[in-house]
Amino acid sequence: MSIVEIAQNAREASNLLQLVSSEQKSLVLKSIKNALSSRRAEIFKANEEDLALAEQEVNAGRLKASLFKRLDIRGKNDEKFETMLEGIDEVDLLADPIGVVLAIFEARPEVVVNIACLAIKSSNAAILKGGKEANKTNHVLAQIIKQAISSLNENGAASSQNHSSFPENAVQLVSTRDEIKQLLDLDKYIDLVVPRGSNSLVKSIQNSTRIPVLGHADGLCSIYIDKSCDASKASRILVDAKTSYPAACNSVETLLVHKDALANIFPEVAESLIQSGVTLHLDSRSKDALLSSNKNFSQKQEFIKDATAKDFDTEFLSLDIAVKVVGSVDEAIDHINKHGSKHTDCIITDSEQNGEYFMKKVDSAGVYMNASTRFADGFRYGFGAEVGVSTNKTHARGPVGLEGLTIYKYKLYGNGNGSTDYGPGKKQYLHEDF
Amino acid sequence: MSIVEIAQNAREASNLLQLVSSEQKSLVLKSIKNALSSRRAEIFKANEEDLALAEQEVNAGRLKASLFKRLDIRGKNDEKFETMLEGIDEVDLLADPIGVVLAIFEARPEVVVNIACLAIKSSNAAILKGGKEANKTNHVLAQIIKQAISSLNENGAASSQNHSSFPENAVQLVSTRDEIKQLLDLDKYIDLVVPRGSNSLVKSIQNSTRIPVLGHADGLCSIYIDKSCDASKASRILVDAKTSYPAACNSVETLLVHKDALANIFPEVAESLIQSGVTLHLDSRSKDALLSSNKNFSQKQEFIKDATAKDFDTEFLSLDIAVKVVGSVDEAIDHINKHGSKHTDCIITDSEQNGEYFMKKVDSAGVYMNASTRFADGFRYGFGAEVGVSTNKTHARGPVGLEGLTIYKYKLYGNGNGSTDYGPGKKQYLHEDF
Repeated sequence: MSIVEIAQNAREASNLLQLVSSEQKSLVLKSIKNALSSRRAEIFKANEEDLALAEQEVNAGRLKASLFKRLDIRGKNDEKFETMLEGIDEVDLLADPIGVVLAIFEARPEVVVNIACLAIKSSNAAILKGGKEANKTNHVLAQIIKQAISSLNENGAASSQNHSSFPENAVQLVSTRDEIKQLLDLDKYIDLVVPRGSNSLVKSIQNSTRIPVLGHADGLCSIYIDKSCDASKASRILVDAKTSYPAACNSVETLLVHKDALANIFPEVAESLIQSGVTLHLDSRSKDALLSSNKNFSQKQEFIKDATAKDFDTEFLSLDIAVKVVGSVDEAIDHINKHGSKHTDCIITDSEQNGEYFMKKVDSAGVYMNASTRFADGFRYGFGAEVGVSTNKTHARGPVGLEGLTIYKYKLYGNGNGSTDYGPGKKQYLHEDF
Repeated sequence: MSIVEIAQNAREASNLLQLVSSEQKSLVLKSIKNALSSRRAEIFKANEEDLALAEQEVNAGRLKASLFKRLDIRGKNDEKFETMLEGIDEVDLLADPIGVVLAIFEARPEVVVNIACLAIKSSNAAILKGGKEANKTNHVLAQIIKQAISSLNENGAASSQNHSSFPENAVQLVSTRDEIKQLLDLDKYIDLVVPRGSNSLVKSIQNSTRIPVLGHADGLCSIYIDKSCDASKASRILVDAKTSYPAACNSVETLLVHKDALANIFPEVAESLIQSGVTLHLDSRSKDALLSSNKNFSQKQEFIKDATAKDFDTEFLSLDIAVKVVGSVDEAIDHINKHGSKHTDCIITDSEQNGEYFMKKVDSAGVYMNASTRFADGFRYGFGAEVGVSTNKTHARGPVGLEGLTIYKYKLYGNGNGSTDYGPGKKQYLHEDF
């Protein structure tokens, strides 16, 4: 199939989706969930093959280890897979659609299911392009989804009054970069591009299309330890934010410490991080503070490095964190607004006033007080699934679920009304809420 | 001032605006309204000078007549000016800001006031670039706004607890194309570009920036006369939609007529349009229908032209309308989705079923049943003012008021919470409404 045909198919499916009822869509979603659940062995096998190939690539230095970790679709005790299935049930709102969404993503194969289901429920047609390293898993997932729709169509269960079947092109998969290049020119058919991946991927796409881009860029999240706070809370938050899933975009990468917290609070936090295997990239003041504390950091030299300027602009995606001392909450805010990626940033403080000030002035999608940045996630926010985390400041921001894939339409019911009937001395506009 | 400085000023003003209270902003808006109202003579004088120069340009064929009509800031009995002032009072909601908005527009000078006030109320800093034909009016309006802010600052009335004054760079005016070119590169400082003007302006901006563009493109609005409807209602709607302000983007440009309405309904509508001075660009079937009717259209040849294919893709902005016969509501919908600009389209019908079907399947920001397309306007929708009419399908659609200039922020208040405290057998996410 040519790329233009794929885009035309999607536009056509999108038009048909506008006539599909909420019940039909629920039926299709339930059917997809059942199919995925019952054919999990097949999916796991494809995923294992992808993982085996990817491992060779990592060993040969051709693939980043952080990408490899995201490739697994099962997770511990199949938790990732079960969460993905649960998300299908949770996607249960209906709103007006955008139309055709082009999603481009890297390693994580569960994104196929997340986006396909969000698209169906929100009446969008989706064109998906996964990373080639998850090619087999993506392919089998897309096939299962397509077959779930077509077998419903065959026994007539998903048909509506107006149309004989649910549009099978509601979800399509493409697999090469060249196809993406062609699709990015088709603003006539495609309403939104959602790239999930590195900053350079997002920027290169923004530079090469007129279609609006919902940029899921790097997550360079920071946590700021204010001058007065509970050291054990701070330790718990930092360990969770850094170590629970270092490859995730909502993991913390930079730790800012108020100078007055250096002696009492910072050493305990640093000790907890080092015990969890985290390497600290320290500026000179934070390093001095550790070495002059009574916690024998000189015996943990392998976890202590000197920070470079570049470290504060780096998304490590590994057990590394950059540490910088600041003189005030304003200095912390300035650092975050300048070096952060506007994803999610946190203040740990006892002072409600400082907390509110930080949350007002930090210009990020998520601003947290006394909680781990790892909560920034569509599932955890209750969206059922997410197409990505937007660091844009238009349309949708933060984890993007169903609402980020919808747009409104103004419907006006008249009785022959003309605009010249309204005005001074004539009919008045009321603008009342119903 | 260099362009980078202007953009940096705006970013700085935007950060300061986040700390400004709702009361401060109301005070500033009231003060701007008073200043504009009391200095109207000055504004009208500048506007008359612009109009005089523009008239010469129109006569010399260097400026389109439709642009000239939009240049007048007063309107009949100063109605346009008063409406602009009233809009300032109506802009009275508060939400989270986007940050820095760059608005690029053509002839209409009242846009300076509309956007400046929306920006202040929504805590956005705005950089405005008007058309050079309204240079003097724009300049005096921007100066009045700036002085209203600075004189409030001087007597301390607009100061907040945290800052000594209201940011005077909240509204800045630039005037050359070269400055725009430079600003479009500064995605570091600018969050949203709002171009108001021709399709080619919007497309050229979309092609030359990474900043999200809220595209206000052409308004190619259509009205479809269904097979059964009231001919006098249809006439009233068409005359209003075509003649009340032909230069506006919400005026009708294409009339689609169901074949079964050709004999009974269309001749009366055509007669009303011709009596109002409208020239009809007819396809062969609609022309035959008129000439074979009993209304003596052969004596009105100067208002009857043969339609060309290009007429159905033309925004006339004049007393011209293209007419095409269709065989069904589906054919009308297909024509609109293919040739329209997704602005506002209308069905005139007696059938609720056909009306609902049309409103569902037509993929435009506004879909109307039995009412003039001229209602598609921020004032008329109750937004107080508009920055433009978006034909995008992301972020904001239709007339864009305060909501289109805002974005949300997720605030999370914790007590040392880590994400690993939640999960199967541990704490659960509740996702309840408050």
